[in-house]
Order: sequence, then structure tokens, then C-alpha cells
Amino acid sequence: MKKTLGILGGMGPLATADLFKKVVMMTEAERDQDHIYILVDSDPSIPDRTSFLLGDGENPLKHLIKSARKLESMGANCIIMPCNTAHYFYDDIVKEINTPFLNMIVETGKKIHRMHSHIKKVGLLGTKGTCDLGIYEKIFKNYNIEIAKPDSKHQEYVTKLIRNVKKGHFNLDTSNIYETIENLKEQNAELFILGCTELPIAFQVFNIKEKTLDPTAVLAESAIRFMGKKVKEN
Amino acid sequence: MKKTLGILGGMGPLATADLFKKVVMMTEAERDQDHIYILVDSDPSIPDRTSFLLGDGENPLKHLIKSARKLESMGANCIIMPCNTAHYFYDDIVKEINTPFLNMIVETGKKIHRMHSHIKKVGLLGTKGTCDLGIYEKIFKNYNIEIAKPDSKHQEYVTKLIRNVKKGHFNLDTSNIYETIENLKEQNAELFILGCTELPIAFQVFNIKEKTLDPTAVLAESAIRFMGKKVKEN
Repeated sequence: MKKTLGILGGMGPLATADLFKKVVMMTEAERDQDHIYILVDSDPSIPDRTSFLLGDGENPLKHLIKSARKLESMGANCIIMPCNTAHYFYDDIVKEINTPFLNMIVETGKKIHRMHSHIKKVGLLGTKGTCDLGIYEKIFKNYNIEIAKPDSKHQEYVTKLIRNVKKGHFNLDTSNIYETIENLKEQNAELFILGCTELPIAFQVFNIKEKTLDPTAVLAESAIRFMGKKVKEN
Repeated sequence: MKKTLGILGGMGPLATADLFKKVVMMTEAERDQDHIYILVDSDPSIPDRTSFLLGDGENPLKHLIKSARKLESMGANCIIMPCNTAHYFYDDIVKEINTPFLNMIVETGKKIHRMHSHIKKVGLLGTKGTCDLGIYEKIFKNYNIEIAKPDSKHQEYVTKLIRNVKKGHFNLDTSNIYETIENLKEQNAELFILGCTELPIAFQVFNIKEKTLDPTAVLAESAIRFMGKKVKEN
């Protein structure tokens, strides 16, 4: 049977295209036919996750379940979701489907545990929803990894950067990002999690050289292996 | 009703991710919810188009129809297909579906006619299948645009470049590409059509500055307008 990977996307659409590209680029393949069959459901009308979680807006859960079921009905054998904040709803989506659903936060925790086992504390860059609701803390405590979060001024910078990427605006001053990273270093963070799917795109555009980890890339790797393919050596 | 764009992809998968990204990047949007709902069916197992058309391999037509119908059944209101060679089968796919299907070659012909009306002859860079079977000639004659094609030695260079992109290999010598463009200039080509969806990716990586037209970008623009959205100003 053909193995099909389903991407529950649209949050945002550019991050969805980015994850799709990463899966393709990171798959060991000599020709089209060696690649993974990928289905993408990129519904950008899914209500804003952070707005709902912080008390102002429609609950996106039923839309997330609908999209997961759509991918399932189309033949997906595994689902991945390129949105950190939406992982707040992970357990509630899993209950409603029969298809394996890789958890991006869990895969990221495992990766740090395996590859960077000396690290005790990481800095989290993400939406206010992801940071305030402890989406990473809940998972990372299983790996004894502490989380440092930006203070409110620096969280504002991160939020603004994410909004700009969603608009496709990249002509920004990068000093705010460096200042935010300094704020996390002062809290003893040793590695920086690009914990919103828009951030790896921004960090690549700005060519920021800090020691970061991109959960989208970790998820792409895990998905490739789950689908029985090899990850390309760099 | 929600308007949904379906991408009939997988030929190749990287070109599919590239078109998806172009549609997102070129859509005028302030937030996720302003973007187009996109479904992607990226089936890389679709048999090689050029192999079949040049007499050696399985006919991809039934797979193309299956994918188009799948997108249709999932709710696509418009279909686009990021593969030049597969447009050989365009009429045969259209017959089997009820959803509008934008033709990338037609959109490209219209664009040249509208924007570069002084141009009488364009150079075509594409697979041997696209070039030998007159996929562009058939459409471009309606716009009085002649086609120059690489001679067999230079066609070999283009074929090799496309294969390398499909493997994700970009560490290439670019002199062969410039030599191929010279070969087309000698035939009086005034503009170069990147007539294989892998080529815009390669030309961007290599930062080639010749006067080219990327049918994938033209298709993305046409699709955005068809879906009732605005194309972002540069």
C-alpha cells in the first residue's frame, strides 16, 4: 500500500509550504518516484489559535478535527501539523482520528534529549499563546529540560515578527530579535527553540547565526523516518 | 462558499512545494485568514511523463485523472498542475472533470502577449518531452510567438540539470546553462521560458540574471486572480 503523509496546514500557509519543502528536500531520493506521497490541507480560515486561547475568539478545535479527518479520509497514513500553538489541541484531535499523528513538540523534546543531552534550559520563541499556556513546558518536563521565556517587552517583539512574516513582510530591523535572544541568555538559555512555524522562515531570511533548533525541521525528519524513507545526509 | 485551489502535484514534489509557496507569497494578505484555501495532492509515483511520451514507460494519464478527481471530490473549485510536460495530457484530463483547470502554457502565452507584445521568438528550456512534442508550439502559435529549442547537445545539459534538481543536487557548474542560453540567442530568442517546473528553482539558486519567464509564477498569479484575491505588488 502506498504510504501517504498528511499535512494539516494553513496555520500559517507560508509555514505549511515551508514544512512541505523541508520534507521534500530532506528525503533521500534520486527521482520523483522515490519521494513521499504528500497530501496538504491548507485551510487558512482556521480561527487564530492564540486569540482563542487568550480568551478572545472562536475555538479552532472543530476545524482542526475536520481537517485531520479530511486527510484521513483521503488516505493519509500519518498526520503532521506545522503550528506550535495548535499543539495545545493535540490530545483532543488524536481522540477523534485513527491515524498516527506525530507531535512536533514531543519530537523536538526527544531530539534535544538525544542530540544535546547536556542542555538543561532552552529559550522559547513563539506566540504569546504557545508561551503563556505552557505547551512546551508540559512536554519538556519529561526530558528534564527547563524553558526560559521572553519578558513581556520582548514577547511583543516576537509577536510582531510573527505577524510580519504572516503578511510576507521581511524588511525589518533585526536588533529587536538579537535583544530578545540576549534576554533569554540572561535567563541561562543555552539553545533557542524557533517555536512558531513562521520563525524559521524569518531567521533564514535574516541569516541569524544563533544556536537555534527548528521544530519544523525536526518534525520533517521524524515524518520522513516514520514513512520508511531515509533522511538525506547534509 | 469557501473557494479552494487544488494543486495536482508530485511532478516533481519540490516544484509542487515551490508553486504552493509562490501562491502564498504572491497573495495580498494581512493575516492567515486572508489567504486562499489550498489542497495539494502530491503523488510522486505518477509515471515519468517524458519517458512515456518518448516511447518508454507507463502512461501517466489515468494517475493524472485520479488526482484531479480526488482534488475535485475534496472540494477544489479550481485546479492547477505544476508540470509543463504533463500539460500534454491537459485536454484529456479536462474531459474527465467538472472543475475549472487553468492551463499553465496558455496563461504563459497570454502573459507574453500582454506584457511583452514586441517579442516574436522565445527560447524554451524544458524536458525533452516538452520540447520534442511541441507542447508550447501548439499553444503559442495562437499568440504568433515562435519557439527556439536547444540543439541536442544543449538539450542534454537541460535534461541533466532537471534531473539534478529532482535529486536536490545544486552544487553544479553553471557554464553549461549559459552555453545553452547562448545557443538559443543564436536562434534569435529574446526571452527564455523556464519550461520545466524544476528550472525556476535552479535559476534562483544559481542567481542567473538572463531575461527569463517562469510559467509557475505566471500560473500562481492567474490562480490568485481566479480565486478572487489580489496579487501582491512587488
